Amino acid sequence: MTKTHSIEAIPGGILAPKGFLASGIAAGLKKGEKPDIALVDAGRMVPAAALFTTSSMAAAPVIVSRENISAGYIRAVVINAANANACTGERGLADARTMAAVTAEALGASPGHILVASTGVIGVPLPIDLVTSGIRVAASRLSPDSASQAAQAIMTTDTTVKESAVAVSVDGAVYHIGGMAKGSGMIMPSMATMLGFLTTDAPLTPGACRRVLEVANAVTFNRISVDGETSTNDMVALMASEALEGEPIDVDHYAYPAIEAAVTRVCMDLAHMIVRDGEGATRFVTVTVRGALSEVEADVVARSIANSPLVKTAIFGGDANWGRVAMAVGKAPATIDPSRLEITFADITTCRNGMAVPFSEEEAAAVLAQEDIAITVDLHLGAAMATIWTCDLSYEYVRINGEYRS
Amino acid sequence: MTKTHSIEAIPGGILAPKGFLASGIAAGLKKGEKPDIALVDAGRMVPAAALFTTSSMAAAPVIVSRENISAGYIRAVVINAANANACTGERGLADARTMAAVTAEALGASPGHILVASTGVIGVPLPIDLVTSGIRVAASRLSPDSASQAAQAIMTTDTTVKESAVAVSVDGAVYHIGGMAKGSGMIMPSMATMLGFLTTDAPLTPGACRRVLEVANAVTFNRISVDGETSTNDMVALMASEALEGEPIDVDHYAYPAIEAAVTRVCMDLAHMIVRDGEGATRFVTVTVRGALSEVEADVVARSIANSPLVKTAIFGGDANWGRVAMAVGKAPATIDPSRLEITFADITTCRNGMAVPFSEEEAAAVLAQEDIAITVDLHLGAAMATIWTCDLSYEYVRINGEYRS
Repeated sequence: MTKTHSIEAIPGGILAPKGFLASGIAAGLKKGEKPDIALVDAGRMVPAAALFTTSSMAAAPVIVSRENISAGYIRAVVINAANANACTGERGLADARTMAAVTAEALGASPGHILVASTGVIGVPLPIDLVTSGIRVAASRLSPDSASQAAQAIMTTDTTVKESAVAVSVDGAVYHIGGMAKGSGMIMPSMATMLGFLTTDAPLTPGACRRVLEVANAVTFNRISVDGETSTNDMVALMASEALEGEPIDVDHYAYPAIEAAVTRVCMDLAHMIVRDGEGATRFVTVTVRGALSEVEADVVARSIANSPLVKTAIFGGDANWGRVAMAVGKAPATIDPSRLEITFADITTCRNGMAVPFSEEEAAAVLAQEDIAITVDLHLGAAMATIWTCDLSYEYVRINGEYRS
Repeated sequence: MTKTHSIEAIPGGILAPKGFLASGIAAGLKKGEKPDIALVDAGRMVPAAALFTTSSMAAAPVIVSRENISAGYIRAVVINAANANACTGERGLADARTMAAVTAEALGASPGHILVASTGVIGVPLPIDLVTSGIRVAASRLSPDSASQAAQAIMTTDTTVKESAVAVSVDGAVYHIGGMAKGSGMIMPSMATMLGFLTTDAPLTPGACRRVLEVANAVTFNRISVDGETSTNDMVALMASEALEGEPIDVDHYAYPAIEAAVTRVCMDLAHMIVRDGEGATRFVTVTVRGALSEVEADVVARSIANSPLVKTAIFGGDANWGRVAMAVGKAPATIDPSRLEITFADITTCRNGMAVPFSEEEAAAVLAQEDIAITVDLHLGAAMATIWTCDLSYEYVRINGEYRS
């Protein structure tokens, strides 16, 4: 039976839950002594789950981690930034396995129980000596208060550290969920996207880990888009430390719904942080499509709007150019009746029955000057809806990505 | 039997073929006395064909023109710029019909024989009085040497006039094909895109008009993308004046293949002009995907690359960032074997067997400093290929589209 629960934001990031240690150290992969290797250790094998990119060009660490997570248990996660170890062939696979082996050796664990993640430039072999030395240093610096250092170490073009944690109370028990993420460009999840690492001291079973991660991911990370791009290295993982007393929590346990809500909350926090820190972003845009014939159609229309460069540049320009929203609706492969289309910016209706509604340009300019913009489209055909969170497209996105590698 | 033929570029645009008159006049829809209404008149009902946007938000002129072309004959085309007459409901439909009626009246024709096209801002009712006065002026100024004025009148954010014409000689007969187009942003054809108008004095049947337009469109206008956006107003039309002596040319006529080649040549010229004049474009990029299992898969991979903002910004930055090309290949819904992937920029191989190939960054920088960039991906899986022409994504695209409406 489902019990009522309460969820409260707390500090501490991935180390808010009991049972984990972490570190984030500078191995020399990034310029300027910035942390670039992160380690999160559960101290022993714990139930875990992970979701990976759907890219057919999946990077070496994705391939290795898919194998290592398959039994539903892991010991630790090791992550390097500045190099994606993608498009690196057999050598890349060997390097990813070396990362797991060196981490396992330093922790006294088995290489098959280590999750490996990489993020950064594609197509350059890992400087494996720097990485392995760095992993050894990271293992020697594991501590209960290095969550932020770990979160810093996984950043690439991110300008903000992305951490979140909550405490969830249910039937007298209190569990903790923590998370960190990185991501700023090449963001449109198509399973999991970006890197995200979650911890909990709720004694979840492997099956519950997998289920809660899939559910939370589907409504959070899989609902954001910075630029419609799906990375070769996307990964979201959850580890459950079993550090608290109590019976294992499977999906039919009374506390499961509360934990699902709490994990979703942490994922939502992190997903929104990624959009707000989207490359060059000046606006946080919530695109909601209602009244669709199916959720799939609502989703495809919402993504068509959220990924439209013409809509995104209009938002950057502070222009309530709803005609471009109508264009993006029209090009989506979904059932549309033009004579029913309704478009609103915040609460300002700009289009009803497929036609312009007179609105105050001043009022619209004021709404669009805000950081948070809501675009809502009602197709007036059915009851299905979907939301996608995105950002605008600015000069800065072009600058960052015109100059990134060089 | 197919005869050998020769095709030669000639001046004259849409008036290079015999049998047409045109005009382009300023009706006050654009600021600053710029021409904004174009008229192309065949003098009588002639065989014709047109292709229209696949957008479910198709504009009023598209709906009216679809009806009017259905029998395969038209008399004239009237086009206004600065206002798309899209998302304008019943009033928009009435306005489009009025445009046809006023044009027909001025020419002594039937309203059902006029093709109507509009381009410009979406969602604003046409200033119909200005438009109807303009049409009457346009009808009074029809002449055999106003092709360029007509081509200027259909421009919106275009910075160049887009005209092309060829003479095709086959078995002693010489036919002419002329064309004009507009388009700069909101460009990714999904049937026809943008506005394009073609004329010929080859005595094509309505069936031959339709066939030649479909074939030419499929390999030209439907193979370009500026920003992956499909307009509400896209239209490409062909009129055949029958002004030359000779038997009607149907699809099984010996001269048909030569005319198909010539029409394709004119469409290709115009399509490439649109990409070169893409909003903010600094590069003309030819994306070719070879070795795919099917043409559909080659096409979907080529479009994934051509529409990738990360690839487009890298090209703008002059950066041979082939890792982003690999990313775009990976996210495309197609069969990929990462270990076979090959990527070249011009003749510089940057990735083979899915891995980096050392290349000279200086040489790459020199290639990428040129205006014309070729990105070729070989999937090494099959024999199918596809090409998409696109441009880069620059600050200027953001500026143009952040400021367009305001």
